[in-house]
Amino acid sequence: MLEWLALFGGTAAGGVTRLLYTDAWSEAQHALKHVMQQKGLDVRFDAVGNLFGRRTGVEEPESIILTGSHIDTVQEGGKFDGAYGIVASFIAVQRLYDQYGAPKRTIDVVSLAEEEGSRFPLTFWGSGFMTGRYSLDQAASIYDQDGVSLKDAMEKAGFGAKPMPVGQNKPKAFVEVHVEQGIVLERKKKSIGIVSHIVGQRRYTVCFKGESNHAGTTPMSMRKDAVRLMAEWVLFVSVEAERMDEALVATVGKVCASPNMPNVIAGEVECSLDVRHYHEGMLNRFEEKINEFKERAASSGMGMTIQRWMKIQPVAMDEGMMEMAARQAERLDFSFETVVSGAGHDAQVFGEYCPTMLLFVPSRNGISHSPDEWTEPEELEKGIQLLMCKLYALAYV
Amino acid sequence: MLEWLALFGGTAAGGVTRLLYTDAWSEAQHALKHVMQQKGLDVRFDAVGNLFGRRTGVEEPESIILTGSHIDTVQEGGKFDGAYGIVASFIAVQRLYDQYGAPKRTIDVVSLAEEEGSRFPLTFWGSGFMTGRYSLDQAASIYDQDGVSLKDAMEKAGFGAKPMPVGQNKPKAFVEVHVEQGIVLERKKKSIGIVSHIVGQRRYTVCFKGESNHAGTTPMSMRKDAVRLMAEWVLFVSVEAERMDEALVATVGKVCASPNMPNVIAGEVECSLDVRHYHEGMLNRFEEKINEFKERAASSGMGMTIQRWMKIQPVAMDEGMMEMAARQAERLDFSFETVVSGAGHDAQVFGEYCPTMLLFVPSRNGISHSPDEWTEPEELEKGIQLLMCKLYALAYV
Repeated sequence: MLEWLALFGGTAAGGVTRLLYTDAWSEAQHALKHVMQQKGLDVRFDAVGNLFGRRTGVEEPESIILTGSHIDTVQEGGKFDGAYGIVASFIAVQRLYDQYGAPKRTIDVVSLAEEEGSRFPLTFWGSGFMTGRYSLDQAASIYDQDGVSLKDAMEKAGFGAKPMPVGQNKPKAFVEVHVEQGIVLERKKKSIGIVSHIVGQRRYTVCFKGESNHAGTTPMSMRKDAVRLMAEWVLFVSVEAERMDEALVATVGKVCASPNMPNVIAGEVECSLDVRHYHEGMLNRFEEKINEFKERAASSGMGMTIQRWMKIQPVAMDEGMMEMAARQAERLDFSFETVVSGAGHDAQVFGEYCPTMLLFVPSRNGISHSPDEWTEPEELEKGIQLLMCKLYALAYV
Repeated sequence: MLEWLALFGGTAAGGVTRLLYTDAWSEAQHALKHVMQQKGLDVRFDAVGNLFGRRTGVEEPESIILTGSHIDTVQEGGKFDGAYGIVASFIAVQRLYDQYGAPKRTIDVVSLAEEEGSRFPLTFWGSGFMTGRYSLDQAASIYDQDGVSLKDAMEKAGFGAKPMPVGQNKPKAFVEVHVEQGIVLERKKKSIGIVSHIVGQRRYTVCFKGESNHAGTTPMSMRKDAVRLMAEWVLFVSVEAERMDEALVATVGKVCASPNMPNVIAGEVECSLDVRHYHEGMLNRFEEKINEFKERAASSGMGMTIQRWMKIQPVAMDEGMMEMAARQAERLDFSFETVVSGAGHDAQVFGEYCPTMLLFVPSRNGISHSPDEWTEPEELEKGIQLLMCKLYALAYV
């Protein structure tokens, strides 16, 4: 089913490019709708194109258990990120129905419209719309890089109509399975990751200002070399992150020196800093720590600015559901690990809205957002089985 | 005279752009020729457009003392680099003639065609042609960025004809004055730099290969972060250079990370390394030292390559002329310092061909290759006076 879904937006390199409201995206959503219908689910789209396939509960139809993930991909992404969560939910719900008939409570399989932020400069458009973080009105002022507004793209794809065709009760729970996009499960040889938190993220732009000078005529002792100061900073940040907490990650991924010539001492360097942890307090402490480096820059006669341009709060997953998942994994004899998600997921939007659980299966070599994304079929199957247990507990008993 | 010369190729920003064989270059050389003629010098161009203004010696006309510098500039350069050496030589020779009449030995004031390498991918075209490093035949296979060959550009400017119009005996000596393009004289409050050596240069491209990974999902302990390795390298190189010798300079001026995104651990970094010193042995020892870092890279599971793509030998200036210049500067009561030139100069080409001397005057804030180039008129005058002493000793006694 993943291979089939990957045909919509499939690329020559074996990847998938399925950006929000493009033809590939529309075809995928409508193909999924068709498959859901064939299996007897009640299908509908909401105003932004989130697709729901409903198995209505026979005792408490108003109680909704929501499960799924996102249908969009990054440019030249893989076959698993997002798609696996939709497919796993669809299969789990189908198997439960085949085995136990209709649930007591309603289960909605959801194929969320957008999570990646690959076409428009916003993320979580699908889950954000469902949970009230975004409204339709915002779509008119958001543009893709070709100058197309989110509103126009949405309407061209057949959505965006007000009023919404069908309402959606607030779910009792949201359950998502996803590929890890990291190497922890693989390295620790675990089949399942039970996510305790989705990390908070802070991103900074850090500028170092020295003096651009001739590489030949300026003695080492007379230099104000912005590349050298940047190098000290990178090591400072890395060592402090390691020292402060095992779960803290700090990354300088982008470095731009100026004038960036072999024979000129760089007068300026701009670099990025990405910091993530699951406790807001830790992120605050680290921010204080990195600001201490400014003194070191000043003492060498150089300038330094640190500008924060992103601050996303950590989100905790539901503890009761986590514990239940651990007991179920033990019963199934699946190896598992409680993990923190260092990447963003729809579950972090739902996590602030309703009880939410996020499960991971391993990613080979930790690779994601690439045609090389891969998870072994037996690991995919374990994710589905644990999800079945979970949905059974939530919707059938 | 410098302000007048700066009119040829003058820019809106107050700088000078006078690239080899452009109209601005031709107009400058022909204007200089005209001025030299007016003062009674015998003028001629050689086959590549080096301009000579000759004061023929009355006793040993075949003995030639050559003095001058280059007429070309970098893109948006200053009014002093090169031009000062031509103007100083012209004025010194004129004053000597006014005071003492014709010299015993012949003095040629030379305005060299090219030194900077700003238009074509070669440097020292003027002095290199005079000393046999380059021949006319090479000009057909060297192109500027618009695809114009050096040969075509040269012919369009009226040069390149074989045989050469007039021969040139090997000079007895070459004497050049130039702005320092560095901050040493200014910091040490010296008026004159007597250059002992022009440094050797080596340039390397250094590549670090780690693993590109998700900045959120990869714990610090599982990373192979090429930016972090590069940072360790920059500090290693800087500290080792400082430790090894005061006159050694090592510069990482260019840094390119890949994929260079804030939320991705860089899998690769490529950076430059520029190393300069006046002793070949020191450059060899430093090259051995930097290769030791490869082990450190390997021990952290990462790859590293160091590729040398430039190797220029150090060149010593004539010791006798240096000593004489020091005595003359003392007599004139000019503060002076024996210095090493960290930048390349025509004197390094002549230094391998005939006894050569290079004198510096200070550069304000060490700035060169910029419209902000500046040297105080009284410092320019001191350079001319010392050059006069020098030429008097070489050509009149």
